[in-house]
Amino acid sequence: MRYALGVEYDGSGFKGWQQLGESGCASVQATLQDALSSVADAPVSVVCAGRTDAGVHGECQVVHFDSDVAREPRGWVLGTTTRLPPSVCVRWCVPVADDFHARFSARARRYRYRLLNRQVRPALYRQTLSWERRPLDADAMHRAAQALLGENDFSSFRSVQCQALHARRELQSISVARHGEVVEVQVQANAFLHHMVRNIVGSLLLVGAGEKPESWIGQVLALRDRTQAGPTAPPQGLVFVGPLYPDQWQLPAEVTS
Amino acid sequence: MRYALGVEYDGSGFKGWQQLGESGCASVQATLQDALSSVADAPVSVVCAGRTDAGVHGECQVVHFDSDVAREPRGWVLGTTTRLPPSVCVRWCVPVADDFHARFSARARRYRYRLLNRQVRPALYRQTLSWERRPLDADAMHRAAQALLGENDFSSFRSVQCQALHARRELQSISVARHGEVVEVQVQANAFLHHMVRNIVGSLLLVGAGEKPESWIGQVLALRDRTQAGPTAPPQGLVFVGPLYPDQWQLPAEVTS
Repeated sequence: MRYALGVEYDGSGFKGWQQLGESGCASVQATLQDALSSVADAPVSVVCAGRTDAGVHGECQVVHFDSDVAREPRGWVLGTTTRLPPSVCVRWCVPVADDFHARFSARARRYRYRLLNRQVRPALYRQTLSWERRPLDADAMHRAAQALLGENDFSSFRSVQCQALHARRELQSISVARHGEVVEVQVQANAFLHHMVRNIVGSLLLVGAGEKPESWIGQVLALRDRTQAGPTAPPQGLVFVGPLYPDQWQLPAEVTS
Repeated sequence: MRYALGVEYDGSGFKGWQQLGESGCASVQATLQDALSSVADAPVSVVCAGRTDAGVHGECQVVHFDSDVAREPRGWVLGTTTRLPPSVCVRWCVPVADDFHARFSARARRYRYRLLNRQVRPALYRQTLSWERRPLDADAMHRAAQALLGENDFSSFRSVQCQALHARRELQSISVARHGEVVEVQVQANAFLHHMVRNIVGSLLLVGAGEKPESWIGQVLALRDRTQAGPTAPPQGLVFVGPLYPDQWQLPAEVTS
């Protein structure tokens, strides 16, 4: 039996979704697998829609797993969440067809990046906000970002460790808006390269702070050269909102496009 | 010289604003005074607009203090914040007249209470959300809450430890609204009694869950009896948004009505 799970996590205390080499910190994946294995009383492996880096959060990560254990979805949700640390929970569980694949069935992914734009570092919401003290022109950032729309080679915004076979991705929407002291970037693409959102945000920050003109983002994209873009923005402001799947899989509305 | 400060804090790790008796946890007040005293190189005591309980957060608490040390406001803000733990920061500093008093000059206080209303506990934003698994009718809660408006005796919503001389307060506005899975209560009064917001929220939850009719809130208010109201809602969902002062004090817009 194959199941899909919606998973929420605060990435602050994790090495990232996947364990990479030796580390004192656990990965979200290993933590989730331990809890699921305990509920199933047998080893469970999960496949996720999109791996997240150390310190990056998940609002509705989706995973699938196979288990011979017959349990009600509610049992998986509550039993697993009880065995997870406070920073992780299972939002929902849905039985899915055997050919559903959390990664390959997803047709889009959404991310949100939030930063506090003021003189003083965040205190109250510091776990999920990055910080930029230079005053930012969010409207200029929004206009500049539109140059990224469409199917493009995103080599300029790709980490050197990225293992993807090619750098072509379809950026479906990107917006930058100010809400008081918070500047929020929302972005959707068919898929993302390693560090792609954080490198885009780091570049947009240079436009927002007036160091680069709005036209610069499109120029950087065209150069297909990582050394031309801005620095990688820090992880704590980034949330993987979740993947989107076609209707056919009958998943909850929040992950269905 | 008298200064007013805007202070933001995550109350999770604190015993509350004020130290009460022996404790392993620090109070926000003592933590702030230590940092200010270090900047002033002399003991500094602060007076706040509204004390908050253990676990309750402050978005813009206001304090005043006196110091002979001549420093630019920017120096107080940055110097103090540097000496504070990550969970506390100083948002702004304004020199004020000697007759300004953070508590007595305030003509209103605002609080916000947020709870996650779903089957599973919060993970990503757990520091600032309470949790209610029973489905809540936020519209019913909103209508019921309107019975509290105006100047009333709030004895029914007052903690037994409350030290106020009387229980009459003017509730100026209260609203309850749903934003997806989050139910948010916003409330403004000239002043609040001990546990008043959390006792009001705890009572509104009974209405939202269908255990009590909408008319019950007004009945409880009229009884002036704490034993008639609902339980005290947990602290982590509560944020002291901040006090409001008359224009004459020339404080930042966020604390000026």
